[in-house]
Amino acid sequence: MDDTEGTAGEDPNAGNAAYGKKSFKRSRSHFADRITADAADGWPVEAGRYRLVVSLACPWASRALVVRRLLGLEDALSLAVTDPIQDDRSWRFTLDPDDRDPVLGIRYLSEAYDARETGYPGGVSVPAIVDVPSGKLVTNDFQQLTLDLETEWTALHRPGAPDLYPEPLRAEIDEVMEGVYRDVNNGVYRAGFATKQSEYEDAYRDVFARLDTVSERLARQRYLVGDTITEADVRLFTTLVRFDAVYHGHFKCNRNKLTEAPVLWAYARDLFQTPGFGDTVDFDHIKRHYYEVHRGINPTGIVPLGPDPAGWLTPHGRERLGGRPFGDGTPPAAR
Amino acid sequence: MDDTEGTAGEDPNAGNAAYGKKSFKRSRSHFADRITADAADGWPVEAGRYRLVVSLACPWASRALVVRRLLGLEDALSLAVTDPIQDDRSWRFTLDPDDRDPVLGIRYLSEAYDARETGYPGGVSVPAIVDVPSGKLVTNDFQQLTLDLETEWTALHRPGAPDLYPEPLRAEIDEVMEGVYRDVNNGVYRAGFATKQSEYEDAYRDVFARLDTVSERLARQRYLVGDTITEADVRLFTTLVRFDAVYHGHFKCNRNKLTEAPVLWAYARDLFQTPGFGDTVDFDHIKRHYYEVHRGINPTGIVPLGPDPAGWLTPHGRERLGGRPFGDGTPPAAR
Repeated sequence: MDDTEGTAGEDPNAGNAAYGKKSFKRSRSHFADRITADAADGWPVEAGRYRLVVSLACPWASRALVVRRLLGLEDALSLAVTDPIQDDRSWRFTLDPDDRDPVLGIRYLSEAYDARETGYPGGVSVPAIVDVPSGKLVTNDFQQLTLDLETEWTALHRPGAPDLYPEPLRAEIDEVMEGVYRDVNNGVYRAGFATKQSEYEDAYRDVFARLDTVSERLARQRYLVGDTITEADVRLFTTLVRFDAVYHGHFKCNRNKLTEAPVLWAYARDLFQTPGFGDTVDFDHIKRHYYEVHRGINPTGIVPLGPDPAGWLTPHGRERLGGRPFGDGTPPAAR
Repeated sequence: MDDTEGTAGEDPNAGNAAYGKKSFKRSRSHFADRITADAADGWPVEAGRYRLVVSLACPWASRALVVRRLLGLEDALSLAVTDPIQDDRSWRFTLDPDDRDPVLGIRYLSEAYDARETGYPGGVSVPAIVDVPSGKLVTNDFQQLTLDLETEWTALHRPGAPDLYPEPLRAEIDEVMEGVYRDVNNGVYRAGFATKQSEYEDAYRDVFARLDTVSERLARQRYLVGDTITEADVRLFTTLVRFDAVYHGHFKCNRNKLTEAPVLWAYARDLFQTPGFGDTVDFDHIKRHYYEVHRGINPTGIVPLGPDPAGWLTPHGRERLGGRPFGDGTPPAAR
C-alpha cells in the first residue's frame, strides 16, 4: 500500500496525504481483477506471465511475499522489489540497474497503472500484480491477492505446499482476520495518522484491546486458527514484525513493546523463525520507509537506530503448544 | 529550562527553536546570581524571601523540586508551578486562580525576567528563583541552583536533612555529573532535536554508551557516588524518570526502554519509591509538555497514552546492595 488514501503517485510525501483529513481511512483497492484458474476475469493463472511488485517495507505487500514463499510460487510468479522511498512519481525501481525493472522495463510502478487506465487519478500502491506481456496492472487488491494465490494458483504450488486457507476453517479465519485488520493491521495506521487526540486514543485502545484478545487465544494454541499456519497468521505477522521498529514510536502505539507482551512476542518469533516469514523481512527498508516518507509525523526524516532486532532469533518455546506448522505439507526450502 | 537556545519567551512553539539550527546546543543560563549564606552576590539566604518557579515537566526544574523536598526547604522556599504548556509569552501561571501566581502576582514568568532586566532578549526558563519583595528574577542557573540549596541554605535545612554534596566526594560527584549531563541529561535532547541523521546517531550512541557505563557502576553499588543519595543521583533520576514516557519515542532514544535495562530500571524505581523523588513526578505534565510543545518534531501535538506507569511502584530489590539512602540523616516526611 502507500499508507494513504491513494495518492502516492501525486504526493512526494506519500503518507502525509491522509494526514490533515478528518480521520485516516484506507482506500479500497481500485483494481480488483482476479487471476483465477478459470480465468473468469480474463486473467488465467499461468506460470511466468505475471510479476509481483512489492516494497519490503509494506506490511500489505509483505503478506504476498510470505505467501509466495510458503507456497513455492517463486518460479511461477516473479518478483520486483521497489525502493523503500517513493517519490512524487510513485514507487521506484531504483534498486535495479538503470533504475528500471529488468522484466517490465519501467522505472515507476505508475507506468503499469497508466498502461491499465490512462489518467488514473488514484494512488499507486503495492502489492501489485502486473501482466508482463502487456505491461498492464492486473490487481492491487491486497485483501484478495493472497487468497487467490492460495486457492486459485494451486496448480503451480510446490509439492508439499501448505493449505493456508483451508475450506472447513474459512469462516473462522475470515472472522479473525476481520478483527485483526480493523483493529491491528489498519488500527496502527489510524493511531499514527490521527490528527485529533480522541481519534488517536480510540485507535490506540482498539489496537491493544484486539492484541489482548488475540494474545489470550494464542496462549492456548500455537496458531490463530486450527493447528496449522493460515492466512490469518500471515496477516498478523506482518504487523507484529513492524511493531517495535515503527508502530511503537512512530505511530505512538506505546502501551507496551511487542517484546513486553510475552505470548505475542513468542508467537511472532516462532513465525519469524519459520522458513518463509523472517526471510522476507528487511528492517532497513521498513524503518527507512516509515520514518523518511511520513514527514507529516516525522518532519526531520531521521530514522531511529533502535531497537536491536537480535531478539527475533531467540528461543520462543512455542513448540510445547503442539501444532503442525505446515499441516500435511512441508516447510519451504530455507533461503 | 525551555529546551531551546533561550527563546521560550518569543516562540509559541518553544522547543522548535533549536530545531532547524545546525545542531542542538543548550544555552548557558543568563542570570547566574547566587543566593548565599554570606550574600556575596547581594542575595542572602532568608526564609520566606524567595519563590522557586518550576514546571513539573522539566527535568532541570525537577532537580530543584527533589532537592527542596529532601532538604526540607518547603517552608523556607515557596513554590510556584507553571502550566506545562508555554505560550508565546513564556511559562504561564494558568494553574492558579485568575491565571496569576498568588505570591508574585504575575501571569507569566517573563514578568520576573523583565523586572530584572528590561528588554532581556533571551529565553525564559525554569527553574527560576524570584525575589518576592522586588519581583525580580535572581537566578535561572539550573546547574548551580541545587548546589547552593545544598551548601548555602544549610541553616534552613530540616533536622536530619541529608548531605547531598558531601565535601570529600565532590570531585567524584562532579566528574560523574559531567558525563551524565553531557551524554544523558542533555544527550537525549541532542538526539531528539537533531536535524541530521549523523547528529542524531552520535547523540544516540552517547546516550546509551553513558547509560551502559553508569549501569555497570550501579550493578555494584546502590547509588552513584559513595553509599548515600547525592546530587548525582538526583540529576540522573530526573532524566531516567522521563525516559520511557518521552525520550524513548519522542526523542528516538529507542535502543531499549528503561524497563528493559534491569540495573537502571531497578535503580530508578528505588529512587522513585524514596520520599522526595517519586512524589515530585507528574507524568501528565511531562507528557503533555514534550508532545504538545515540540511541534517541530510532533506536528500533530498528539500525546501518547502509553506507557503504563504502574511499574514504577514494583519491588526493586536494591536494598541487597546496602547503602544508607540518607546517610546519617533521615528521609523527609512522606507527602
